[in-house]
Amino acid sequence: MENLENSTDCKETVSPLNNSGSILNSTVSRHDGKAMGFVLVHAGAGYHSESKAKEYKHVCKRACQRAVDRLRAGGLALEAVTAALTELEDSPFTNAGTGSNLNLSGEIECDASIMDGKSLNYGAVGALSGIKNPVLVARRLLSETQKGKLSAGRIPPCFLVGKGAEQWAISHGIPACPTEKMTTKFSLSGYKRNKRKMELAEQVETKRKRQSCGHENDFGCLEPVRDIMVEGEENNSACLDTVGAVVVDREGNVAAAVSSGGLAMKHPGRVGQAAHYGCGCWAENARDVSLYSTAVSTSGSGEHLIRTMLARECSTAMQAENAHQALLEAMQNKFISSPFLAGEDCVLGGVIVLRCCTCGEAQRSEDIQALLVEFLWSHTTESMCVGYMSAQDSKARTHISRLPPGAVAGQSLAIEGGVCRLGTASD
Amino acid sequence: MENLENSTDCKETVSPLNNSGSILNSTVSRHDGKAMGFVLVHAGAGYHSESKAKEYKHVCKRACQRAVDRLRAGGLALEAVTAALTELEDSPFTNAGTGSNLNLSGEIECDASIMDGKSLNYGAVGALSGIKNPVLVARRLLSETQKGKLSAGRIPPCFLVGKGAEQWAISHGIPACPTEKMTTKFSLSGYKRNKRKMELAEQVETKRKRQSCGHENDFGCLEPVRDIMVEGEENNSACLDTVGAVVVDREGNVAAAVSSGGLAMKHPGRVGQAAHYGCGCWAENARDVSLYSTAVSTSGSGEHLIRTMLARECSTAMQAENAHQALLEAMQNKFISSPFLAGEDCVLGGVIVLRCCTCGEAQRSEDIQALLVEFLWSHTTESMCVGYMSAQDSKARTHISRLPPGAVAGQSLAIEGGVCRLGTASD
Repeated sequence: MENLENSTDCKETVSPLNNSGSILNSTVSRHDGKAMGFVLVHAGAGYHSESKAKEYKHVCKRACQRAVDRLRAGGLALEAVTAALTELEDSPFTNAGTGSNLNLSGEIECDASIMDGKSLNYGAVGALSGIKNPVLVARRLLSETQKGKLSAGRIPPCFLVGKGAEQWAISHGIPACPTEKMTTKFSLSGYKRNKRKMELAEQVETKRKRQSCGHENDFGCLEPVRDIMVEGEENNSACLDTVGAVVVDREGNVAAAVSSGGLAMKHPGRVGQAAHYGCGCWAENARDVSLYSTAVSTSGSGEHLIRTMLARECSTAMQAENAHQALLEAMQNKFISSPFLAGEDCVLGGVIVLRCCTCGEAQRSEDIQALLVEFLWSHTTESMCVGYMSAQDSKARTHISRLPPGAVAGQSLAIEGGVCRLGTASD
Repeated sequence: MENLENSTDCKETVSPLNNSGSILNSTVSRHDGKAMGFVLVHAGAGYHSESKAKEYKHVCKRACQRAVDRLRAGGLALEAVTAALTELEDSPFTNAGTGSNLNLSGEIECDASIMDGKSLNYGAVGALSGIKNPVLVARRLLSETQKGKLSAGRIPPCFLVGKGAEQWAISHGIPACPTEKMTTKFSLSGYKRNKRKMELAEQVETKRKRQSCGHENDFGCLEPVRDIMVEGEENNSACLDTVGAVVVDREGNVAAAVSSGGLAMKHPGRVGQAAHYGCGCWAENARDVSLYSTAVSTSGSGEHLIRTMLARECSTAMQAENAHQALLEAMQNKFISSPFLAGEDCVLGGVIVLRCCTCGEAQRSEDIQALLVEFLWSHTTESMCVGYMSAQDSKARTHISRLPPGAVAGQSLAIEGGVCRLGTASD
């Protein structure tokens, strides 16, 4: 942070593994007037082909715009993050809401969660079908929690799954949406292709098992998991992964959210990190002036993100002095080399992280809050598509971050970020 | 631990809030022969009437015996903890498996999870109907994870919910069980009584809302939440809460599991802490000799246990020098006074905790492992029923721990425990 005043241009760093000494190059934005907030979104960590890059960037841009619209209208972080997620879910190109991956039975089952750093309230839905915007159900669960106990003193739920979640949503005024309307030509063709691949893989496995006298642990694998998990089209790969956003508002409140259609060809009822507390998203306002407010949203291979509780781990790490170094170490030690994933040779995931604190000027002036926002993304997947925007920007910046040439996905990482100072006229 | 050699009798401490200076009184068991392990179980934190105490103690005794049978037969911690849970689920008196609380629709939906401290693998099911022993599905999910990838490189799920979980269980050879067979006279009469209470509460609320010109946040509460959550019969209260167990085996591996029918009258699809990673149970073998192996299982109000991630927090706390003091502080600071439950005036839950390390003797002898096992329970509910047994004991000890007279449930805590030294003939 000490170099902040001297840096005004935007640079991004790609740090291959072990490049832990690199300094965070910064995007510094200075704005006159009231600091109204900042949003960072992602359209998934996975593989983004050059041919589809424009679409993903465009989705991120629109999501940022939606969040900023809410912030400008006086909305708080929770409202803005919900608006961003709704836009990301509505895109047929992302694996969330409309266009979600289909499960083994050819159905859409979505996971989503949201956390409010101010109240520390949380809401989540898992394996939810028949609702266009799963994040709205998670958000509503969060709101209902804030209202207090239900009749006869029952504690309101923070996590609902399956048919029960769908019924709850409808009874709370969230309209049902037929699965057919959420299925796209793209998700359907992906399903058919994956089904053929699986059948072929299973035939080969059966043959192999017979030849190897039935070794129980010999689960052959025709192609690496990412082929099923993130590829959209043969010879024209597209990202099909979890989306999310993190926001800080004018009051310095943070919020985070995440939404996912889950792994393609997952077993019905499978719930991934997007519906797991501490794993899909995390937001925590600073409890005193010596701490940062932090917000995190994750993407990637759900089971790896669950077992490492990556969102919460990154949030905790963000209290260290150097944000870039802290995230690098968290991704390396708590994810790639996590003891919880000791048997895994390919650990795929990505995070977006935001931390903020109040600048010195603001401490002198009670009317105008000046916020220093540090934002980062890091991934072990081939690429990750992000967008970011402050409430004073005229448009969002978007970017597809890629692993450096020669780096191995699942074993190496990229890390980039910037700093945005939402200042005052007196700066 | 330094007083261990001088103490041979069993005492238990009940520490009211702020009695943080109390010393852990110890149960010290010394056993000749090979150390084969130790089990600690609970039949729920809630309210256990004197009239039903015998039943709950008996369930705990049988569960300990089942686990010890497995340990004596050479089974590891994971097998033993599964055996204990199966017994606890099969009892019609516990709120898990058979005899589970019914949800709003009068159905049984169970949550369960299991964690292996050796591999750090984890399996969980949520809102699962139609399976007699939910823990067996969680255990099978864990086992399948250990086998590696599925066909075409798909990552196996660690968490399944609802109908999908039921189908998966059946396709993996776990037999279906009609809900009627799992419903008891006791759970059905509780459902009918709670339904009447709710209807009455809702009538009163509607009337109150009309009188107060429709204050949206005025969710009246006829009776405290525990009346719905833990009471079984009018004037004859019984514990109806989550069950669990923690085990250490002859190799010093730990495992933990938890199973629950969830809150009575919960919304269908509601998933509680028993199916939440880090919230319902936690088990982690020591990664080096300076650390303890720890295992934790929780019980109580699911949403509170989720938002505080109590199982993992207690496990982390257990690395401190003084186990009793560490658990006391964790229950006080990370649960009762947790910033994640800032709006809650009544925080109900309980934990059982086990930590172990290898004794000095074992370091000199490679054949015989001597383990020092410290075991504790703590609860903010009126009472908690526990049982414990080492593989050398002829029978389990059981105990109903109660808050000290005058202590307020949800705001105070009780903490008790002991030490078991699974020694060698040369002691």
